[in-house]
This record gives sequence, C-alpha cells and structure tokens, in this order.
Amino acid sequence: MTTSTPLEPVDSFDYVIFGATGDLTMRKLLPALYRRFAEGQIPDDARIVGTARSPLDDASYRERAQKALKEFIREDEYADDTVRRFLERVHYVSLNGAEAGGNWDGLKSLLEKDAAEDRVRVFYLATAPDLYGDIARNVDEKGLRTASSRIVLEKPIGTDLETARKVNEGVGRHFPENTIFRIDHYLGKEAVQNIIALRFANPMLERMWDRESIEYVQITAAETVGLEGRGGYYDGSGALRDMIQNHLLQVLTVVAMERPASLEADALRDEKVRVLTSLKPLDRDHLATSVVRGQYVQGKQDGKPVPGYREELGDDSASTTETFVALKAEVDNPRWQGVPFYLRSGKRMPEKLTEIVIQFRAAEAGLFGDARPGSRVRIRIQPNESIRLPLFVKQPGDRFALEEVDALSTLNDPSRVVYRDSYEGLLLDAVKGSPALFVRKDETEAAWRWVTPILDAWGKDTQGPDPYEAGTWGPDAARELLRRAGHRWIEDIAG
Amino acid sequence: MTTSTPLEPVDSFDYVIFGATGDLTMRKLLPALYRRFAEGQIPDDARIVGTARSPLDDASYRERAQKALKEFIREDEYADDTVRRFLERVHYVSLNGAEAGGNWDGLKSLLEKDAAEDRVRVFYLATAPDLYGDIARNVDEKGLRTASSRIVLEKPIGTDLETARKVNEGVGRHFPENTIFRIDHYLGKEAVQNIIALRFANPMLERMWDRESIEYVQITAAETVGLEGRGGYYDGSGALRDMIQNHLLQVLTVVAMERPASLEADALRDEKVRVLTSLKPLDRDHLATSVVRGQYVQGKQDGKPVPGYREELGDDSASTTETFVALKAEVDNPRWQGVPFYLRSGKRMPEKLTEIVIQFRAAEAGLFGDARPGSRVRIRIQPNESIRLPLFVKQPGDRFALEEVDALSTLNDPSRVVYRDSYEGLLLDAVKGSPALFVRKDETEAAWRWVTPILDAWGKDTQGPDPYEAGTWGPDAARELLRRAGHRWIEDIAG
Repeated sequence: MTTSTPLEPVDSFDYVIFGATGDLTMRKLLPALYRRFAEGQIPDDARIVGTARSPLDDASYRERAQKALKEFIREDEYADDTVRRFLERVHYVSLNGAEAGGNWDGLKSLLEKDAAEDRVRVFYLATAPDLYGDIARNVDEKGLRTASSRIVLEKPIGTDLETARKVNEGVGRHFPENTIFRIDHYLGKEAVQNIIALRFANPMLERMWDRESIEYVQITAAETVGLEGRGGYYDGSGALRDMIQNHLLQVLTVVAMERPASLEADALRDEKVRVLTSLKPLDRDHLATSVVRGQYVQGKQDGKPVPGYREELGDDSASTTETFVALKAEVDNPRWQGVPFYLRSGKRMPEKLTEIVIQFRAAEAGLFGDARPGSRVRIRIQPNESIRLPLFVKQPGDRFALEEVDALSTLNDPSRVVYRDSYEGLLLDAVKGSPALFVRKDETEAAWRWVTPILDAWGKDTQGPDPYEAGTWGPDAARELLRRAGHRWIEDIAG
Repeated sequence: MTTSTPLEPVDSFDYVIFGATGDLTMRKLLPALYRRFAEGQIPDDARIVGTARSPLDDASYRERAQKALKEFIREDEYADDTVRRFLERVHYVSLNGAEAGGNWDGLKSLLEKDAAEDRVRVFYLATAPDLYGDIARNVDEKGLRTASSRIVLEKPIGTDLETARKVNEGVGRHFPENTIFRIDHYLGKEAVQNIIALRFANPMLERMWDRESIEYVQITAAETVGLEGRGGYYDGSGALRDMIQNHLLQVLTVVAMERPASLEADALRDEKVRVLTSLKPLDRDHLATSVVRGQYVQGKQDGKPVPGYREELGDDSASTTETFVALKAEVDNPRWQGVPFYLRSGKRMPEKLTEIVIQFRAAEAGLFGDARPGSRVRIRIQPNESIRLPLFVKQPGDRFALEEVDALSTLNDPSRVVYRDSYEGLLLDAVKGSPALFVRKDETEAAWRWVTPILDAWGKDTQGPDPYEAGTWGPDAARELLRRAGHRWIEDIAG
C-alpha cells in the first residue's frame, strides 16, 4: 500500500482573491495555500493578493491571515518560520472589485512587478455571486486578464436558472469558458473522485453498476449544525440551493455517468452533463410525491435542547426556508431506467454524515434458502472516507448459513495518508489549468434547469416546509418517500 | 456480524473407532469429540468405543485418551470434570478388525447394551486402507451393521485407481454407498466451504468466475515440516497421493464447479464429479511439461540447517518418493477452457501456507493509462482463514493514479468465532448422516483416474524427482512451469 501521490511543484503564480476578508478565505483558502506552501508545492516567489473593501495594508492583512492560520490549521502544521515565509508572499489591495473606480492600478502594478508575462494569474471570486460579472468585467477592462489567467467562481452560481445564466454570461463576456473554474469542493474530495476509480477500474463493480443489479441509490449529506451565524446567507438560499443543486447533483453525476472516453476534463464533463440532462423533469404534479422539504423546530442534540430554525434566525421570523430536502431523482436512460436516486440533505440531523449507498437488488430464493435482502456498497465521504463492499460469506459453524460482512477499505487512513482539505487540490488545479474537477457552464445550467421548477412550485405553495425536530432525520414525509417504494434510508436499514 | 451458527445437539450414538491407538485418533478424533461433548452437542449417553489390537481395557485406554487430550487440546479447553465425564463415555475392545476371529461378540454386546434399535452407529476406520474391506466385511457379517450405521473411511482410499476401486468395492459389498463417508478434512475447513458461499451468493464474484475474467488459478498447500517420524507411511505415498489426489483436487472442484442445483449432498457432488471428469487427461507426452516432482535435500529453515529427505529416512535411503509436486491441470469445459489450474504441495517449504489464488486477467490500457497487471482474489485456508478481495482505488493525492488495496475479510476472527478443528464438524456430520462434505465413490475414482497416469509415468522414469533445498519453494522447474505461460506463483508476485 502506497502513500499519497507526490506533490509536483507548480509554476509560479499570483493568486488574487476577491472577498479576501471573508469567512471562506480565512477558513479555507489561506489554510489550503499555506499547507501546500509548507509542503513545497508552491514556489517561493508565488504571491497571494487579497482584495476587499476594508482599508487594510499588507501588514494588517497579514496579521489577520496569521490569526486565521492559527485558528484553522492543526497545531502541528503551524511552523513559525514557514508561516513567516508564507505571509511574506501575502499582499493586500483595498479595492471594491465590483466597481470600476478604485485602486485597480495599484493591483495591476503589484501583479506586474517582477513577473514574467506568462506568469499564471488566478482570480478567485469569494464574494457574493451577483458581483461575479462586474468583477470579471473590471479585471478584464482594467487590463489584468493575461493569456495565462483563470477565474475561479465559488458557489452559488446564481439562485435559479435565470440568474445562473446571467452570471455565466457576465463572466463569459470577459473570460473564455476554458479559463472559468467553477468550484464545487465536493469534487475535490478523495471519496468522490474514488467513485470513478471504483466504478471503472474494477470489472467486479462495473458489471454490477446498472438497473439490473441496483435497486436504488441514496446520497445523504447531513449536518448536525444549525445556522452557525450564517443566517443571512442561508435564509435566502435553503438546502436545495445550498446543497442539492451543486454538491449532491455533482455526486449523482459521478455515480451515474457512463464510462467516459478519457479522464480529460471535457470527456468527463460531457458525461456528467449527459446525466444531468437525462434527469426526468419534476413537474408540479410530481413534486408532492417526489420532493420533501423540512425546517427544523426545537429539539435535542446529544441530549441537549437546541432551538428551532426560526428562533435561531430571530424572534419574529416566519421564514419558510427549507433546512432539509429529500427528493427522488430519476435518470432516464437505459442504464438507470426505473432506479430511484434519493438525495437528501439537512441541518440539525442526528449525525454529520455524507454517504452514498448503492443498494443492490434482493436475491431470489435459491441455493442458499429463502430470498434475502440485497446488500449494499457504501461510500462514505464524511467523516471518514471509506468504502464498504458487501460480501456474503458462510457463517462459521456446521450449518451452511450465510452472513453478510463488510470488506472495508479506509481511504484516508491517517497512518499512510496526509490529511488534505478538498480545497487544496482544487486551488492548485486552477493554477495548473486543470479543469477536470470543476463544473462546466452547461453542467451548472443543466442542474439549475432541473432544480428551478421545484423552487417555482415552492414559491407558489403556501404550505411551507414540514417541521421536524432538531436532532432527527427530517420530517416523516422523507421516510414515506422511500417507504412507498419499499425502500429505506440507510439509518433505518442499519439501526 | 454474528458468531458461529449454534451447535444443535445430535441424537445419541456410538462411535466405533478402528485404529483407536493410532496417531489420528489421539491427535484429531478424540480431541474433536471431546470439544463437541464439552459444548453440549453430544448427549451424555453417547459412547465412543476404541478398538485396536493392543490388549488394553477401558481403564488403560481411558488413561491414554486422557493423555491425548492433555496434549492436543488447548489448556483452556481442558476441564477436569468435563474430561472425567467424557472419559466415562469411552470404552475399549481389543480386537483386530481385519480378522474374523476375535472379540466381536464383546463389541456387539457392548453396542447392544442399553441401546435402542435405531441408535446411530458410526464405524470410523482409522487403520491402514488395505484393511477397510476386511473390517467392513467383519462388521457386517458379525451383525454389527444396523439400519442406522455409517462407515467413515480415512484417506488414502487406495494408492491408485485399481486399489481405490478395490477398497470401494470391498466396503461397498457390505455398506450401501449412501452410508459410506469418505473423509477429506479439507472439506471440513471453513475457508473451503466458504468458496461456495463466495462464488454463488455474491453476483459480483459470480460474474467474474470464468475464463473471460480469470487468467489462472493456483492452489498451494505448503508445509514447513519434514517427515515428523511418519517416514514409513510417507515414503510409500509421496506428495501426489498424500495431498494432490485428495485435498488439492477437492479444492479444485469447489473452485471450478458449476452452480449446483442445491446444496444437497448429491447435487453438490454431481457437480464436483463433473469437474473431475472434465480434467484434461495428462498423457505421457504432457507429463514433462505439466508435472514437476521434487524431493528436498538439506537446507535451512528459519536460519537453522535441516537434513534432506533421504537423511531423514535413514542413511542408506535412495528413495525417489516426491516430497513436492507442482502441476498444471486444465478443466476442459466452456467456463474454464484454456485457464490453467496450478496445484502445488510440498514439505519443507519456507512457510506453512494453504491458499487459493484467483488471478484475474490484466486490464488493457484505457481510462487509467497503461495496461496494468490483473488483480487477484486470495482465499487463505491456513494458517489464518481469510479472503482478500482486490480493489483498485484512487491513490490519495492530486493526480489520478490507481492503487490496489485488499479488502480483507478474516473468517476466523478469534473475537467472534470459536476455534474448531475441521474434523469436528465432519465427525458430527457422520452422526447426522449428512454426506455433503464427504467424498463420493465416483469422486475418489475420478481423481485417481486422472492422477494414476502420472504415477505410472514416474514409475517408468529413471530420473527421479528434482532435488530442492529444504526451506525453498521447490525445484526451479516449478517456477518454470508457470513462467512459460507468463504466470507466477504467489510468493513471486507478492515478494
């Protein structure tokens, strides 16, 4: 068993972050870049340039960056000398990226200082999505976009099909599509990428991966937390936009796609788009039976009382934003005809869990006696990336009875694998210009096209989300969604 | 995960052992019966009746039995009170089973004392095989064979096809075939029985189990020991008769057989016979390329010098008995056309190891880059029963590289499974009258039919076995046997 693939040093670059004082930058981007710098993948003359409206200078921004590293990386990763060298690479330009006025010249001259013409530039947009078009325009019109530039867009790309198109068009007017990197950090996760290896490098599994063998698929992304102070953003978004439209549909494409011609970015993404455009549209008539939305009310977690969503938002809130969605998707092609893909995501669930379950069909009565329930492959994405393969073996003893065991393969065994946050590889992929793990324009839009009718229907529905107690697996309707087909969520199977 | 299937108490019985003072009885039979007695599977009024020529009485035989238990069961299994109760069930009748004269009346009246007419009687023949016919005749003619009697025959059944037939006919004249239990303790092993569960309860594996996916199969039974004082028996037998004809060919049948109609004894054995009769005959021309025999000369084991086979036998020995055999078998049917089954067994090998390796075909170049070697399923029978399933996963890291991991399932995890010697279940199966794990007449004879031409050819060959150093994996020719086809023994793959 080997360790991780070696990190190959990248060419020097400048990383320009818009929204550099925000939560994402502090929690994810700076720690990810620091880790790779510490591992020697990032050259000593690379630069990270934060921009935001706050009137900071290099020194005061570096202070904030240092605080962020202290807080968000592990203690054993924090080395004073390395942090010092890293922070020397960090600069700050006070600038409102969405406005044409402002210190663009300062940013430009900083980027052009001591830099070869073909030096890679990455513009990372960690701002509100409605600013993406304006920022892209300014970057372009102020002459900052070079031949070696790329632009990284954080989710959400829009809030429905129309706004997503607007963002894509706005950015696309100034950056060619092959330089636009739409990030979905789920694609940076080992376990998600591993689905491709599992499916296509193991004939054993490849032969089982269709409607003939698979009864249904479930993809769960459950969080235990509530709003965590993100109420403002979240209440305008909800679980469908925040999790399903991007992360869970991305996972679905990787589980369901046909064998791509190659692992090249566009071969891969062509297949993923094909899945998204094959999703059976959910019209209004189907909504009631196929989509469940919920909102948590007060309940208990780990034995302690926790407030409901509206209480967390503020005393008078009558928000109808969903904190839970469960839905049934169907991929309308020969491989998947009739196989439900159940997607589910929620806050204030009993455990933090992101998992894909591939449920095989039951075995008919035969050689080993009575019919028996189908086994299942479980691909755990969080908290511990692992793959469980079901195996029926003979139960030890004189009688010939079967028992099911899990052949387990842990993917991130800490004894052999360095911990890597899913952002790390993606940030560097943008530097390398490798878009395979980024979301193409047509993917985003196909996902929105499928999701938007749900939003529309909810908008017209006065009933609002079903309440569920915090610390439970969502409203009863979510269980009922599967029960109707004789199916069960994994926690009801296992427990 | 469950523990072993529960032991169901059996009806009362008498176990009559011929050869009751021999090594097998002391080492295996008495300990196995004791263990099941201690676990409550054997009723308190069951009896074990040893017979042999030695002039012992109950008391002195019980003394020997007690010594055997002390020596051959684990200390924590030995409970004074249980041993005492067990030994009360043990009797002895001094008798030469092969001769019509002798104390048959004593044996008969002992068996008839306090016994219902339909009480199960098992006659276990742990004597030299050339006595089997005579013992069966005496048992029958002296009126000891009842309607509920069975006879258990230890290997070897004969020394070639002709003598095997003679044994089968001799015994068959006095016992109906469905009461003849030919024991092959390999069939009592969990890992061997598990092959049936693995193959036929897991579509994932069932679909891979043919020439299209499998390149070759290897079955190894390697011992580290030399003669261990069994020189007299072994020198007249050799590895082909002692291991290949029975154990390894039995394992081969279970690996290669078609899906049986049921797990009933005859459905199972019909399929096993079909494999044996499909074995491509080895004629003399093929022998040189398909069969390798070896005999160990002095060498080193665990760093210590060990003598050669002839030295162990005695100073002047010029024995040509093989202590090692490697051969290539082919099953001439649509499933296995062209797939070599390499069988190998030897003494004084570097490690004690019984293992089945299913080598899958190499993957062609494609999605994941260059062609890569095939993976393999490994079913370990000894020393630790386990199943390793190969799985290609993505190597952690930014590059999309594959690595092979083993999804391991330990079958005899001591934390959940009581240790059971393979004899235990088989001894009780004979009581229950369940012959599924015993070898039917036609199986034995089909195996001998295939093996006998090898013996004949060796008989005419003056060259004798290839020498190999003790502590090695046999003569070079064994490696060459595979190398010619581009194949390798597992220790050359793994190490």
